Amino acid sequence: MKLPDFFETDHAAVESALERILPKEDTQPPSIHRAMRYSVFAGGKRIRPILCIESARMFSEHVDAAIHAGCALEFIHTYSLIHDDLPSLDNDDLRRGKPTNHKVFGEAIAILAGDALLTLAFEALAKSPLDPARRVEVIAEIGAAAGTVDGMVGGQVADVEAEGKAVTAAQLEYIHRSKTAALIRASIVAGAISGGAANEDVERLRRFGENIGWAFQVIDDLLDVEESSAALGKTAGKDQAQKKATYPALFGIEKSRAIAAELEAKALAELDRYGERGARLRQLAGFLVARRS
Amino acid sequence: MKLPDFFETDHAAVESALERILPKEDTQPPSIHRAMRYSVFAGGKRIRPILCIESARMFSEHVDAAIHAGCALEFIHTYSLIHDDLPSLDNDDLRRGKPTNHKVFGEAIAILAGDALLTLAFEALAKSPLDPARRVEVIAEIGAAAGTVDGMVGGQVADVEAEGKAVTAAQLEYIHRSKTAALIRASIVAGAISGGAANEDVERLRRFGENIGWAFQVIDDLLDVEESSAALGKTAGKDQAQKKATYPALFGIEKSRAIAAELEAKALAELDRYGERGARLRQLAGFLVARRS
Repeated sequence: MKLPDFFETDHAAVESALERILPKEDTQPPSIHRAMRYSVFAGGKRIRPILCIESARMFSEHVDAAIHAGCALEFIHTYSLIHDDLPSLDNDDLRRGKPTNHKVFGEAIAILAGDALLTLAFEALAKSPLDPARRVEVIAEIGAAAGTVDGMVGGQVADVEAEGKAVTAAQLEYIHRSKTAALIRASIVAGAISGGAANEDVERLRRFGENIGWAFQVIDDLLDVEESSAALGKTAGKDQAQKKATYPALFGIEKSRAIAAELEAKALAELDRYGERGARLRQLAGFLVARRS
Repeated sequence: MKLPDFFETDHAAVESALERILPKEDTQPPSIHRAMRYSVFAGGKRIRPILCIESARMFSEHVDAAIHAGCALEFIHTYSLIHDDLPSLDNDDLRRGKPTNHKVFGEAIAILAGDALLTLAFEALAKSPLDPARRVEVIAEIGAAAGTVDGMVGGQVADVEAEGKAVTAAQLEYIHRSKTAALIRASIVAGAISGGAANEDVERLRRFGENIGWAFQVIDDLLDVEESSAALGKTAGKDQAQKKATYPALFGIEKSRAIAAELEAKALAELDRYGERGARLRQLAGFLVARRS
């Protein structure tokens, strides 16, 4: 599903910043830069960067630093996909309708391309056009969200370890909040900090981000059951085949839809006080929950 | 070979900071934290942190920020070893006399433990007790040194791709400077910045670090030929078996020793003007070139 048209400007700004920050394909050694670019430009919707930019826009007209942070978030998201697809992890051959990174470049380069994107993310953040005090806040926020303690890697580990086992609702919640919601929340918090938001606004957006990120992963689980591989651009039905811990598996489709709707409502409530200023983030949230791919 | 005794204080300070910064073993999910700690506490000499601390000490009595940066450098070094040892890269079973990370925890966890250490490095740097303007300088410096453009991952890629091929002296230089010298140089530069050094001092120490880091890798090549696996704590003779691009392979042992000595002399010349203040770094440099493991 395409993002609503009025996010086209954000999307274009992100594409051009990604293009600028990533080393060119012929930079030595070319194989790694080709591999990094292959996955970064494989058709991602740029959801995290756009969330970051729109959060910043609630507090400032200047969104250059948020675009910069958005690129870093996209690098981290992309590295996580490259590593998750590896044979010893999810062993996936297809991503966004294209062969996965290791299928094209081999496992060694795929591992190193992931490492390189993660490293580049932090280098880019360190050079962001934001005052240094806020810059280090953004780096700490994103670093924690991508890490092991209630962060992306921790969620990924719990996810791998839960395969084939009976999980409780609490364990499933841990996996989804860490694996997916943490980085989406960090995208929104990084945007708010980049836009110069006051602490209490940052905290409000943090709660918005947490809930919308969590809803996002519940929807992802549902799409894996309900949609075709062609629609998703990745192998559908994979969760069930791999006996993954998912919301539909634990609660059924009906109840999972209700949980996603409830999380969305909780998220949106945080934006109430911002009125018209929150309109674009509200629309983005709606899109993330209503999407079909 | 053990470091000279008078670096014991630095070593102890690094151990205790690593212990403090790394999540405890029972933090959820425990497997990843056990895997991270297993490799970080596998008996590394802490060369990069100690170089960082001693560089800082040339300019300030306060070395807390340098200890912090040193931990980040050790996390990055450790992640690179975990990933390099993986079956699809160097496929090594032994590291510092112990089974490699993936041998103990499996490939999936080893990949994620490397990712997690890299991420934690930048999170730790972002929270370092250093003024934010210098903090972002340190992050940018270390990020670039760990990356693909004349950095560690770029060198690793070139190294993997050179296996079994005839390389020129220029290609070998690129590999060694990127794969190893870059992060050692960054350790010294990060220390100087953390210690509040003026720009021209930072640049002088950068040249010191570049040359001593390069000499360090030439010595590593030599040790792989000359020493036993028992002495090294890793598989000796591996470079030749894997047809790696090395100095002894290209220039012979004699000439390689001479190159290392020349690089050491160039490095030491940069410290001349500092007199007694440079004594400890000078001794460290001597140790790095004279070591037998």
